[in-house]
Amino acid sequence: MVDVTSRDDIEGLTVGVLGGTGAQGRGLALRWAAAGVPVVLGSRDAQRAEAAAAEVTETVVAAGFAAPSVTGADNATCASRADVVVAAMPWDGHGELLSSLAGELAGKVVIDCVNPLGFGKTGPYPLDVAEGSAAQQAQAVLPSSRVVGAFHHVSAVVLADLSQASVDIDVLVLGEERADTDLVQALAELIPGARGMFAGRLVNCGQVEKLTANLIAINRRYKTHAGIRVTGHGL
Amino acid sequence: MVDVTSRDDIEGLTVGVLGGTGAQGRGLALRWAAAGVPVVLGSRDAQRAEAAAAEVTETVVAAGFAAPSVTGADNATCASRADVVVAAMPWDGHGELLSSLAGELAGKVVIDCVNPLGFGKTGPYPLDVAEGSAAQQAQAVLPSSRVVGAFHHVSAVVLADLSQASVDIDVLVLGEERADTDLVQALAELIPGARGMFAGRLVNCGQVEKLTANLIAINRRYKTHAGIRVTGHGL
Repeated sequence: MVDVTSRDDIEGLTVGVLGGTGAQGRGLALRWAAAGVPVVLGSRDAQRAEAAAAEVTETVVAAGFAAPSVTGADNATCASRADVVVAAMPWDGHGELLSSLAGELAGKVVIDCVNPLGFGKTGPYPLDVAEGSAAQQAQAVLPSSRVVGAFHHVSAVVLADLSQASVDIDVLVLGEERADTDLVQALAELIPGARGMFAGRLVNCGQVEKLTANLIAINRRYKTHAGIRVTGHGL
Repeated sequence: MVDVTSRDDIEGLTVGVLGGTGAQGRGLALRWAAAGVPVVLGSRDAQRAEAAAAEVTETVVAAGFAAPSVTGADNATCASRADVVVAAMPWDGHGELLSSLAGELAGKVVIDCVNPLGFGKTGPYPLDVAEGSAAQQAQAVLPSSRVVGAFHHVSAVVLADLSQASVDIDVLVLGEERADTDLVQALAELIPGARGMFAGRLVNCGQVEKLTANLIAINRRYKTHAGIRVTGHGL
C-alpha cells in the first residue's frame, strides 16, 4: 500500500512508466529523473525500453542534473519493479495490456494519462469508451489496484524540453482516495512550475481526458503547446 | 446574418438570454449590460423576466455604470427581438424549448452555455447526451441557426459580483464558423479580464460542458469559484 502525502515519501519510491518509449511517457520520465526519482521505463520490447532509458539518462545529465536512476524493461518487469506505475501506452490496446498486468499491479497506485481520441479530417475528436473513460476502464480491469487519472494535458513537447525550467500548467488529478490523489499531486509538483490539483472522482475523468482534443484545437489555432491553469480566489 | 469580428460591431447588437432569470443567464446579462450592450432577458413567464431585468438595471446603476438597456420578455419575444441569443435554460427542457423557438432563432447565432450534469451522493457527474453535447443538440433542433458553445465555466457567483472588476478566466468558444466564434470571443471579452479562446468545433463541445463537474469538485475541495486559463507560449 502506498500512502504518502509529501515529497519526502515520494523520493523513496520507484516510478514505472508503461508505454515509456512513447512521447508522453518518456517526457514524464525525463522530468522525474531530473528531479531524482528512480524510474523504470516499460515497453513491449525490453531492448527498446533500455535504449529509451539510456537516452533519458543522457538528456538529464547533459542538462546539468545529477546522474539519474533510469532503467528499461519489458512492461511486466516494469510493473513488477515499480511502486507506482503510470499507464502511458496508446489508447489502442490500453485495456488489454493493463489486464495482462493485473497481478504485477495489484496493491499499487496506477496513474492513467491516456486520452481516448480519434483523428478525422477536421482534427481530433473524443472516442466513446464503454466504461466512461480510460481511467475507469483501467479500474475495471485492475480491481486490486487504485487508479488515479492525471497528466492528460501536459504537452510532451514541453516535458521533453528541460530548458523550460518552469512549466506553466496545473495537473488535474482524479481518483477515489485522498492518499492516492495526494501522492499523484506530489509527483506532479516534481515537474518545476506544475501544480497538482484534485479535480474529482473517476466518474469525472472522461471529460478531462477528452479535453486534450480541445487543447490540440487550441494548439493549431494559436500555434502553441497549450496547457491549463485553474483560477479562483485562494488558488 | 451576424458576421462581425470586432467590438465595434458587437455594440450595435442586442443580446437575448433565454433562461435569463437563472443564475448563469442573469450573471452574463449583468456583465453585458454593464458594458453597454442592450440585453433582453427571456423567461417562460414575461413578468418574471421583467422583474429580473429591473434587478439587473438596478445592480448595474448601483455599481456606478451608465443606465443600461435591459428588458424582459417571454422566451419567444426575447428570441425574436435579439440579434444574438444565449441559451442559458436548465438542461432539463433544453432541446424542447429551443426546438419551439426554431423560427425566431433562424439565421441567428445561438450561444449555448448549458452543462448537462446530474447530481448524486458524491457530487455532480456528466449526463449522456444522444447528440454528444448540449450544443450539438441545439444545432440538431435549430438547423437554420449557427450554434456556438461558450461560457460553460464562468462562475455565476463571480459574474454576479460587479465589484470583481477583473475576472481571471478564459472563455472556451466552440463552433463551426470563424465569424461566429470570433463574435462570441468578442462578447466574452466584454467581461473585464476575460479572454475568449477558440477551442474547437462542436464535436469537441461535450467535454467542455462536462468539465463543469470538475470545476464543482475543485470548488468543494479548495473552497473557491474555479475557472480556467489556457497557458502556452504566445498566449
